[in-house]
Amino acid sequence: MHELTIHLQPNAKEPLYEQIYSYVKQNIQNGKMKSGEKLPSTRMLAKYLEVSRSTIELAYEQLLSEGYIEAVPCKGYFVAQIEELFQWNPTKRNLPEETEEKAASYVYDFSPNGVDLNSFPYNAWRKLAGESLVEDRTELFRLGDSQGEWGLRNAICNYLYQARGVNCTPKQVVVGAGNDYLLMLLSTILGQNHTVALENPTYKQAYRLFQNLSYQVCTVDMDESGMRVEDLEKTNADIAFVMPSHQYPLGTVMPLKRRLALLKWADAKEGRYIVEDDYDSEFRYKGKPIPALQGYDRNGKVIYIGTFSKSIAPAIRMSYMVLPAPVLKSYEERSRFVNSTVSKVDQMILQKFIEQGYFERHLNKTRALYKNRHDTLLASLRPLQRFCTISGENAGVHLLLHFKNQKEEDLIAAAKEQGILVYGLSEYYVESPKRNEAVIMLGYANLQEEKIRKATALLIEAWKDLIC
Amino acid sequence: MHELTIHLQPNAKEPLYEQIYSYVKQNIQNGKMKSGEKLPSTRMLAKYLEVSRSTIELAYEQLLSEGYIEAVPCKGYFVAQIEELFQWNPTKRNLPEETEEKAASYVYDFSPNGVDLNSFPYNAWRKLAGESLVEDRTELFRLGDSQGEWGLRNAICNYLYQARGVNCTPKQVVVGAGNDYLLMLLSTILGQNHTVALENPTYKQAYRLFQNLSYQVCTVDMDESGMRVEDLEKTNADIAFVMPSHQYPLGTVMPLKRRLALLKWADAKEGRYIVEDDYDSEFRYKGKPIPALQGYDRNGKVIYIGTFSKSIAPAIRMSYMVLPAPVLKSYEERSRFVNSTVSKVDQMILQKFIEQGYFERHLNKTRALYKNRHDTLLASLRPLQRFCTISGENAGVHLLLHFKNQKEEDLIAAAKEQGILVYGLSEYYVESPKRNEAVIMLGYANLQEEKIRKATALLIEAWKDLIC
Repeated sequence: MHELTIHLQPNAKEPLYEQIYSYVKQNIQNGKMKSGEKLPSTRMLAKYLEVSRSTIELAYEQLLSEGYIEAVPCKGYFVAQIEELFQWNPTKRNLPEETEEKAASYVYDFSPNGVDLNSFPYNAWRKLAGESLVEDRTELFRLGDSQGEWGLRNAICNYLYQARGVNCTPKQVVVGAGNDYLLMLLSTILGQNHTVALENPTYKQAYRLFQNLSYQVCTVDMDESGMRVEDLEKTNADIAFVMPSHQYPLGTVMPLKRRLALLKWADAKEGRYIVEDDYDSEFRYKGKPIPALQGYDRNGKVIYIGTFSKSIAPAIRMSYMVLPAPVLKSYEERSRFVNSTVSKVDQMILQKFIEQGYFERHLNKTRALYKNRHDTLLASLRPLQRFCTISGENAGVHLLLHFKNQKEEDLIAAAKEQGILVYGLSEYYVESPKRNEAVIMLGYANLQEEKIRKATALLIEAWKDLIC
Repeated sequence: MHELTIHLQPNAKEPLYEQIYSYVKQNIQNGKMKSGEKLPSTRMLAKYLEVSRSTIELAYEQLLSEGYIEAVPCKGYFVAQIEELFQWNPTKRNLPEETEEKAASYVYDFSPNGVDLNSFPYNAWRKLAGESLVEDRTELFRLGDSQGEWGLRNAICNYLYQARGVNCTPKQVVVGAGNDYLLMLLSTILGQNHTVALENPTYKQAYRLFQNLSYQVCTVDMDESGMRVEDLEKTNADIAFVMPSHQYPLGTVMPLKRRLALLKWADAKEGRYIVEDDYDSEFRYKGKPIPALQGYDRNGKVIYIGTFSKSIAPAIRMSYMVLPAPVLKSYEERSRFVNSTVSKVDQMILQKFIEQGYFERHLNKTRALYKNRHDTLLASLRPLQRFCTISGENAGVHLLLHFKNQKEEDLIAAAKEQGILVYGLSEYYVESPKRNEAVIMLGYANLQEEKIRKATALLIEAWKDLIC
């Protein structure tokens, strides 16, 4: 029998039973205690180590439950055959991250995809996470509804109805881990042999994804009202992917007339659908928010997609789509078996976040924040007003500067000289049209007002020689 | 100016500033305080309500930040134009869940897909969740690595190397929200025009998904060593989807010779791949665990898929795949832009869970638990040994009973009479072969030993007349 001379530390953070458990486990793992070897009885070991017998019992129970020792009735405890056990050294190999070489470092980044994360209500989120993990624990770790939990879908419906004018029931809502995933799921629902028309310029991520999903893809040019429906008619597309509330990257808001024309296009043929990506309609600084296109749809033609990436945080990975009746039917037949990609815990946290009013408060707060940044940027750009025109303001988190007879590369390079990262519109075009203007995008969501003032001053300085 | 006669409750849970904030907000929302109306100064209101001026300042700040009021320098605070604000009633419509009619209620369910959730270390998980949400907060909500966080990928590599003999670096690991999603992502990586061969019977979910993803799909029969490679040769498949460690549903463990034959098939032609779904290899009760097929692959032919659904909990939605060099290359070119489907918070919790040894302990604990249930079930089935043969034991969480000259429907119906749900093998076949036996699957992961004894006794009673 092994002596088990354990130097117990009564004042350590680790409880005594845990110390005994760890000692025995280690000795079994490193072979000092061998398979079949008998352990001292709980009574004897308690006496020897001068601890209570229940402490030893706790330690042995832990060892038993993890398979390190075995109990033989009337004989006692024995070291088990451990080659079957899992044991590995969690820190054995710790490979350093291989990162791509960092691009030139910039002092200011006018990224159009920024989100202010300082205003995120971390404490509320943590509180709700803690609450969720206490309630209803077993249920929470069981596989959930593949479409998303009913409670969350109901909360999303309420929000969409009241804030976006979207008409739907929770039955039509599918929750998924991000828009990319939802577009993949949509492709399993709609099946093959479709042609998708996207606006040009557009959100390139969607364009690439549609291509990879083996759709035929084409682009349709935009005018000041959005996608030109007469051009769409000339394609053989049966799916139109549009962002009517706030087109990315142009910032165009599609007027009602164009929306109705688009719906008419979809109504004209069975199997035609409009995918409405309503990615950041929450941020609008002037006038009433415009209801979603989905709200005007009477014939089940609009597949509405929304996300919490912009309105809450990019890393929470929760989006949703609202399926019209015919698409819902094929979802149920073809794709409902696909398991949900969002954990139940995360869904419950988000549901509470919406239901307890945190989402409403957070939206109003970030919008007020972005509006101030938007106003500051517009004011700071005033010295440029003779040299360029501004578009895409009053909504979203970026605006566009149009310079006649300039080259984007030159403007971007000059900004870089001053340590400022700005973005050219060209990279958003699938096929670049002939334009005699350069368009620079300036995002402001992630820049505080003081920084916006400083960065804009530097930018004007950088461009002075080019544009004056 | 509005009077703001607020009945403050100093002993309420809600702090005073919050009470003032709520009062003003409500009065603005219901129109009692109108746009442009001036609010009392902080000094006056503090005096009037007999609270400190900083309490009023806090309340006004909150109202300001959410856009309910505006500050005009040297003039004071005014009610803002609120039609632009978000406000909705989170509980306006609360539709009851429309559930499908529940199937007949059973007393005991021998589901082969069960997981014991009582043994889940909830407290550890909650502790790690809390820790994760305190550290590094802003970083945690920023969009993460599309492939999964490096730290988690490194932890998965360590685990796979030591516990499963998988050779890989974190660079090859892609984390995703469940196997279904990973198969979708894989289809964007591999592109179109592939034929996938699956074992027959197989995991039907994968079969349906491959079909929906517009692959050509075929099945290959199994013998006692697994997928018959000579039959595979006869198909025009270029991808073989197999479960060598523990085939689902048959429980077959593929011996080394067959594994090498399968690898030889893959090596014979460029572009051939094996998808190894190692879904529950953690649970093996006799003999050493068998290393993964991936560990024998020298030519970059095996795409390894693993999941934490079985080993931790179905609802956490985390799986991973290990890509061989050529597939990794096309992932980077074609699909790396697709955003991750798992939130950073969840990834960090899981990383800590693995690194701090909780995963190892949990695996050993559940395995010991399942082994006891497995042994109990085998012992309880002894009275049936003259009437059927048992297969698929010693691993996984279910076993199979083979009855000669019986019909599965009859056995299932007789069990149902006693309130017991058992499963027939037939539903796992894509094309049902002619068999003169009935095969019943009994899963035991989610049944405590006492229940297993009672349920088995009832089952034997139910089948007595049929089989004796």
